[in-house]
Amino acid sequence: MSALPPVDVTGVDVMAVANPLRCRSWPDRAVPSRVVGRGPGPWTCETRGMAEPTPHTPLTDLLVRVHDHFLPHTEGEVAAFAQAVGGVDADDFGLALTTVDGHTYSVGQDERSFAIQSISKAFTYAIALTDSGFEAVDAVIDVEPSGEAFNEISLQEGTGRPSNALINAGAIAATSLVAGSSSNPHDEGSVARGDTRRDRLVRGYSRMAGRALEVDEEVLAFEREDGDRNLALAHLMRSFDLVTEAPEAVADDYFAACSILVTVRDLSMMAALLATGGVHPQTGERVLDEAVVERVLGVMSTCGMYDDAGEWMVRVGLPAKSGVGGGILVVVPGQAGFAVYSPRLDRHGNSERGVLACEALSAQLDLHLMHGVREPHSAVRVTYPVTAVPSGVRRPPAAATVLERVGHRGRVIEVQGALTFGAAESVMRELCSLQEVDAVLLDVRRVTVVPQFAREGLAAVARGMADAGRVLVLVDDPDRGLAGDAVRVVARRRVGVEAVENLLLERHGGPGLDLEEVEVGDVGVVSTLDAADAKALHARMESRHYAAGEVVIREGDPFVGIHLITSGTVETTSGAAGAAGDEQDVADPTTRGPELRRLAVLGPGHSFGEFGLVGDGRHAATVTAREELQTWLLSPEVLRQLEVEDSGLALRLWQAITREAFTRVRAQMEELAAAAAHAG
Amino acid sequence: MSALPPVDVTGVDVMAVANPLRCRSWPDRAVPSRVVGRGPGPWTCETRGMAEPTPHTPLTDLLVRVHDHFLPHTEGEVAAFAQAVGGVDADDFGLALTTVDGHTYSVGQDERSFAIQSISKAFTYAIALTDSGFEAVDAVIDVEPSGEAFNEISLQEGTGRPSNALINAGAIAATSLVAGSSSNPHDEGSVARGDTRRDRLVRGYSRMAGRALEVDEEVLAFEREDGDRNLALAHLMRSFDLVTEAPEAVADDYFAACSILVTVRDLSMMAALLATGGVHPQTGERVLDEAVVERVLGVMSTCGMYDDAGEWMVRVGLPAKSGVGGGILVVVPGQAGFAVYSPRLDRHGNSERGVLACEALSAQLDLHLMHGVREPHSAVRVTYPVTAVPSGVRRPPAAATVLERVGHRGRVIEVQGALTFGAAESVMRELCSLQEVDAVLLDVRRVTVVPQFAREGLAAVARGMADAGRVLVLVDDPDRGLAGDAVRVVARRRVGVEAVENLLLERHGGPGLDLEEVEVGDVGVVSTLDAADAKALHARMESRHYAAGEVVIREGDPFVGIHLITSGTVETTSGAAGAAGDEQDVADPTTRGPELRRLAVLGPGHSFGEFGLVGDGRHAATVTAREELQTWLLSPEVLRQLEVEDSGLALRLWQAITREAFTRVRAQMEELAAAAAHAG
Repeated sequence: MSALPPVDVTGVDVMAVANPLRCRSWPDRAVPSRVVGRGPGPWTCETRGMAEPTPHTPLTDLLVRVHDHFLPHTEGEVAAFAQAVGGVDADDFGLALTTVDGHTYSVGQDERSFAIQSISKAFTYAIALTDSGFEAVDAVIDVEPSGEAFNEISLQEGTGRPSNALINAGAIAATSLVAGSSSNPHDEGSVARGDTRRDRLVRGYSRMAGRALEVDEEVLAFEREDGDRNLALAHLMRSFDLVTEAPEAVADDYFAACSILVTVRDLSMMAALLATGGVHPQTGERVLDEAVVERVLGVMSTCGMYDDAGEWMVRVGLPAKSGVGGGILVVVPGQAGFAVYSPRLDRHGNSERGVLACEALSAQLDLHLMHGVREPHSAVRVTYPVTAVPSGVRRPPAAATVLERVGHRGRVIEVQGALTFGAAESVMRELCSLQEVDAVLLDVRRVTVVPQFAREGLAAVARGMADAGRVLVLVDDPDRGLAGDAVRVVARRRVGVEAVENLLLERHGGPGLDLEEVEVGDVGVVSTLDAADAKALHARMESRHYAAGEVVIREGDPFVGIHLITSGTVETTSGAAGAAGDEQDVADPTTRGPELRRLAVLGPGHSFGEFGLVGDGRHAATVTAREELQTWLLSPEVLRQLEVEDSGLALRLWQAITREAFTRVRAQMEELAAAAAHAG
Repeated sequence: MSALPPVDVTGVDVMAVANPLRCRSWPDRAVPSRVVGRGPGPWTCETRGMAEPTPHTPLTDLLVRVHDHFLPHTEGEVAAFAQAVGGVDADDFGLALTTVDGHTYSVGQDERSFAIQSISKAFTYAIALTDSGFEAVDAVIDVEPSGEAFNEISLQEGTGRPSNALINAGAIAATSLVAGSSSNPHDEGSVARGDTRRDRLVRGYSRMAGRALEVDEEVLAFEREDGDRNLALAHLMRSFDLVTEAPEAVADDYFAACSILVTVRDLSMMAALLATGGVHPQTGERVLDEAVVERVLGVMSTCGMYDDAGEWMVRVGLPAKSGVGGGILVVVPGQAGFAVYSPRLDRHGNSERGVLACEALSAQLDLHLMHGVREPHSAVRVTYPVTAVPSGVRRPPAAATVLERVGHRGRVIEVQGALTFGAAESVMRELCSLQEVDAVLLDVRRVTVVPQFAREGLAAVARGMADAGRVLVLVDDPDRGLAGDAVRVVARRRVGVEAVENLLLERHGGPGLDLEEVEVGDVGVVSTLDAADAKALHARMESRHYAAGEVVIREGDPFVGIHLITSGTVETTSGAAGAAGDEQDVADPTTRGPELRRLAVLGPGHSFGEFGLVGDGRHAATVTAREELQTWLLSPEVLRQLEVEDSGLALRLWQAITREAFTRVRAQMEELAAAAAHAG
């Protein structure tokens, strides 16, 4: 690998770079070599099998730049097989990248078919591990780099065991461990089609690529003709009992696997499948076990690039496999797969231009496993006292005072991202370091991935907190079962905050905060009037009783009056279509159904119904008794009578209602400002 | 490496596992072997040099479990040097893990000193690369796995070049490339102390460990005595001109480096320094260049474990380096470093028990590079129309109607986490796929890491959008300069939303929405009265004018009346201490200063001052004219006169004010519910 001058992108207007992106809907080579344009345009390729096309993005431009930069680099020689078979254009150069969610970007000769050759070894190894199991495969094939060239006759001293599955000997041994009967060309009539090992290989590769791949019979014929070294290896391994079937048959299936035709887009899809841990990026189907993929990638890391493996790990830093057909397949675990096709090879048998392009892509996209991006140190997004996000339950003033005093003993901790080891450790450390705390509301709704360590660790932390007299409540989708049964889960933060507020009041509140019953003179607007006015008003009001669950006011009702609660609590909810709710995850509010949203919980000392005064004179929320409820009602009729019979009291009442209203406006503005700060 | 039975943690109450954690404040070996306890307790060790101690967490318990699980495993032999020098307890077993933010967890013999031996090779290589540069080092030392044992006399055919820097030959060559004069033991008087290569090495290692390390003279004497093979290598390399100095002197510095004493806590700190890319985890000081660290880790990945490198990558999957002293150092790039000490070695010269413990830790903590955790597919946290998060600017009803109709053409996209390649690609794809959009507010305040590709890609997307007539605005800390000068950055979402609302009104609003001036009869509460009432009220009001920037009402002023705006706009702000604001990042509100918070922007047709009616009769917000302002004032005196002189109008006015107030309460409740949904 020669030293690569870095692709300088600083100061380059990337959108202005011309775009030779190949589009599958256009005839090969008919693509204008200089399409200048920006934003989604006619060069946007449809992603295979997906409804949503892959748009033109800066990644498109980067692929174009890398492609153009290395296009003039024409060192190296086309492999002997390709020269013999013909039909290979030595100048071909294609790049493709597929994301783990199945979007493929490609450029250059991205639909040109070529022989997969040694890249097949990674997939044959995966299928052998799947079909025969790790133990049987490991008994026959080691996982150490051989440090030798791809076609060395190299078997380990004594055992005859191939060093790894990505050299010829190891791949032949792996082929013999793929399920299916032999497809011996000398005995083709003896096996039913569909049962053969060769079919198993072709179908397996096709499933990974997401389309039906085929063996190129011309390439296969060449490989058979030129197969002496590989037949020698097969025979040698049978002499060690590592291969138990007819060496010719096993070698022939190996030749067939090497002769399968792929495009660089196929390879990038197969690489992306390895990046997901074995799930097909487009269909979501699990094609390979995660353990199999992990093993294959581990071996690719040290053995994938022949005797260039160390240099590759230093310069590109990603698991990869190359083939003498001119392809290189590269895996970015968890993120993407990419592939390059350029048939001229370097002295190691790797695509000369391909290696350069891979190095440039790894550097430009910052993909080197040993560099990577330093993860944020902490998964803790923000932590604040529960008082910063009140539950919306309106409580008596004494209770509010207590919460103001001890609110810091109830903490909300919001956590985000993937709880990989470092992130999980930071969360646990935060939880285990808390001082002067009664309850923690751990909001994990933004957590995306929860590995075993994080799951068990959170459960353990919860138990430890419980033993220390502390309460841990998760805000999460209850179906996710993130931390086991030991931890209470609530779906909404407000519900959790209410529980924490109740706990704090219970522990620190002292007596008299649970207002079970109040006099009507102590309720809402009446409590702000002088004694005579309050008494006069009381005399005009009617007492009302409701059972738990009973609807007191229904959304859309005409104004029924103002209720003053003397005992019990109510919940106000609204089902206004199209408005944002706190019951659901947020996506596009326009897609939301008419789910009910809880607006507030009100208890003794509070009033409701004032909204009926507004706008069209209809109530805009439904009010439901949460338990047995007693109220005093100030009806519209009474309000009208009052204007006529006692205009002084009427004026003072309306002034009091106005004050009450603006007190709420003011408090809500505070809450909104706080919410804006917390939410961003 | 033998097959490892998995450490079964399912169903184990990890908090109940006994805790033999070594604490530095307790005498060695005096730690009770079974301390049962939970939560922070006396076994919490102080993290060296840090104010904040590392608490007891589930990670502590996991280390204890792994330690206890392998404690009975006593296979293998102590190295010859250790047997000869003596003082090594073959049963010693210590584990330590250090996070990238410098918290160390440890268990067992975590303060026992032992010779660093070959682990030094990784750090000598790093120092050689730093002192002599990549070119000079690469000219002498290759980066390929040798596939041979640690002490092979292995130099590449023809060139005599060592295969890599982590075998003896390579490490001796690397030592010769460390700055400083020779510290030839045969000529010690000839160089001043402080200038020698040996000092450079000892100081370099010490800086990485964060404490002064020392050479063990007994071990050094043994290495010199037993140094024939290494002296042979040094001489051989001089014969190839790869080593240009006196071979004895170079070899002696190499021996000295191998004889430096470390603890397993030291090694875990040094590993964590490599995990951060060269920044000291505790001091934040940059000790090594990122490129040097990337190179060292790349070579460790394929060459760190002698001829067990392939198996190690398959089973543990992390860059590592072992030493015959019994230590193994393991790096989890970006997350942590850990180390093991157990002096009995396997046939490869690696710590027998150490390898098993490393494999268990990698598996339990899900650290294997080829497995890892699949990152979330998208960095896009949530996307919604701007109408879901109104700016707080109160606009005329016609404008509100327009925004309702075209609000979806202004999108807010919130992005979070590290914009690694896959994450950045998903954001750009989202931005490039948008249809029917005029403006996008990209809220990147939760983005933690922005590599080059993401930075340049966002700038390119912004340019592409601008050319397509679209506007991209970032919500971010303006000092971060995330996407260059091309993109407008606002610090607060509200400000960005206001800009997007203005743009949408400008493009889709038609004429008449920019209410430059209105009649007082069209303002706020007056507009809801009938014509006669409005006229009567108008006659009692006073006209007021204010210059841009002038304060109309100051927070704390006694009630000055209700202002009705006929032209110009005002901003209301509040400086209430201790309350949450939207100007700052959210942390602990109790730590906040009294910064001003913007509550609302009001324009023609709106009124302000009503809050002075509330509570103690003082205004709770400051109102400032944003531009030249004209209002009509309804003073407290007029309100009082009205009660006496026209009680009917007074009552209707107060009723109107009440309706207006509850309209705002209702709208704010909707906003709060939406904010709760968006914020979580």
